Parts: sequence; C-alpha cells; structure tokens
Amino acid sequence: MVDENNMRAAMQEYVDAFNRADLESLTGLFAEDATVTDPVGSPTKEGKAAIEEFYRGSLKTGAQLRLAAPITASHAQSAAMAFDVELELEGAPTRIRVIDVMTFNEDGRFTSMHAYWGPGDMEVLK
Amino acid sequence: MVDENNMRAAMQEYVDAFNRADLESLTGLFAEDATVTDPVGSPTKEGKAAIEEFYRGSLKTGAQLRLAAPITASHAQSAAMAFDVELELEGAPTRIRVIDVMTFNEDGRFTSMHAYWGPGDMEVLK
Repeated sequence: MVDENNMRAAMQEYVDAFNRADLESLTGLFAEDATVTDPVGSPTKEGKAAIEEFYRGSLKTGAQLRLAAPITASHAQSAAMAFDVELELEGAPTRIRVIDVMTFNEDGRFTSMHAYWGPGDMEVLK
Repeated sequence: MVDENNMRAAMQEYVDAFNRADLESLTGLFAEDATVTDPVGSPTKEGKAAIEEFYRGSLKTGAQLRLAAPITASHAQSAAMAFDVELELEGAPTRIRVIDVMTFNEDGRFTSMHAYWGPGDMEVLK
C-alpha cells in the first residue's frame, strides 16, 4: 500500500515538474501502462508513449499550475488536487480551474490520471 | 448530456443541503441506484437506502462544508469539488480536507460519489 505522504509528494512533484517544463521527471511519475484522460470526456491516452506526447504538447503552451487547495489522499491508492492552470491562449492570459484524480500502483507511480474540467472552467483574465 | 452548469448547481446544492442538515434534499440529489464511497478505500454504499443511512449519520455530526476552490465540471457527465469539512470530534474543532467526484445520469442526478481524503487530511484546529 502506498503511503499517503508519498502520494501527496508525487502529486506535488507533478505540479513542480510541470512548472519546470521537465518532461522526463513529469512522465517518470507514471507507470508504463498508465492512462491519462484530460479532460474527462475526451479520448484516453494509453501508455507511456502517448502520455509523453500529450505532456510534450502541454508543456509547449508554457502553462503554469497553481494549487488552489491542499492535495488530498485517500484510504486507498488514490489522491486528488484542485489547481489553476495559467496560460496564454491566443495572446490572452487565461485560467482553467481543474481537479485531477490520480490512482497509484504499489511502486507509487500513477496508473491513471483523470482531469475534471469543462469549457465553463476556463476564464480569460482581464 | 447533462449541462455543465446543471452539474455545478447540483454540487452546490449538495453543499447547501448538507449545511442545512436537509436529508431529503441531500439524498434527492442521488439516483435510486447510486453509490457512495467515502472515503475511497472504504466499503461502497449501494442504493438509496444505504445512502440515506450514511448521510443521516453524517448530518448528526453537525459538520459544515466549505468550498475550498470553485466546483469544476468535465466534458462528460462528471464534476468535482474541493472542500473543507468542519466539525467537532470528541470536543475538538476539526477540519478534514476532501475532494469529491460525482458522476451524473441523464436526469442530472448523482450516480456515484467518491470522496478522496485520508487520515493526513484531518487536522485538529487550535
């Protein structure tokens, strides 16, 4: 069973690696056969290669992630966090409010990531 | 497909009905065959009767829910929110940080609720 604190540390490292645009550290948090569904409702990316491709694109946007509330864990192998994605979209500073849920394997790597956000969670900042 | 705004409104009503200790409105948000897993890792409650029993007990604690970040929705039939549960545990003011994820049916009722929190998300307030 993965320790709660280890799960929180992995979630924090996800945010930090993303903000450093450190693709290797970011994708290193995922298991080989992990899945990413971002946003929930879009096609799921399956496996490390698809996940790397997805994050390579995401990092190119220059987006920065800011935790909106503390990371929570569970009594099982999963954790969740609410954060803001700050990026420029067509030249306009934009914020997307997101909640991510990750599940973990015994090694503490992510086996799945689900990002809950919709069009209404995206806001152009004045 | 349930509208994003309807999902957000249902999530907000969940918080408001809980805080009014309004069991009928609270459980009325759930589909008849809904499931509740709170916290994730504990046994799932299945069906309206089990859900009513669970919330009857929860409301008795006098807990109040405070959103910690805005409710988010998804491109599919699910929504999530980060909130603090404030309650007295053995006489001590306590806060539990939680993230809930709900899925919805076509009528806009919850088909499942998963609450992500662990022992480390519980804090006795000074």
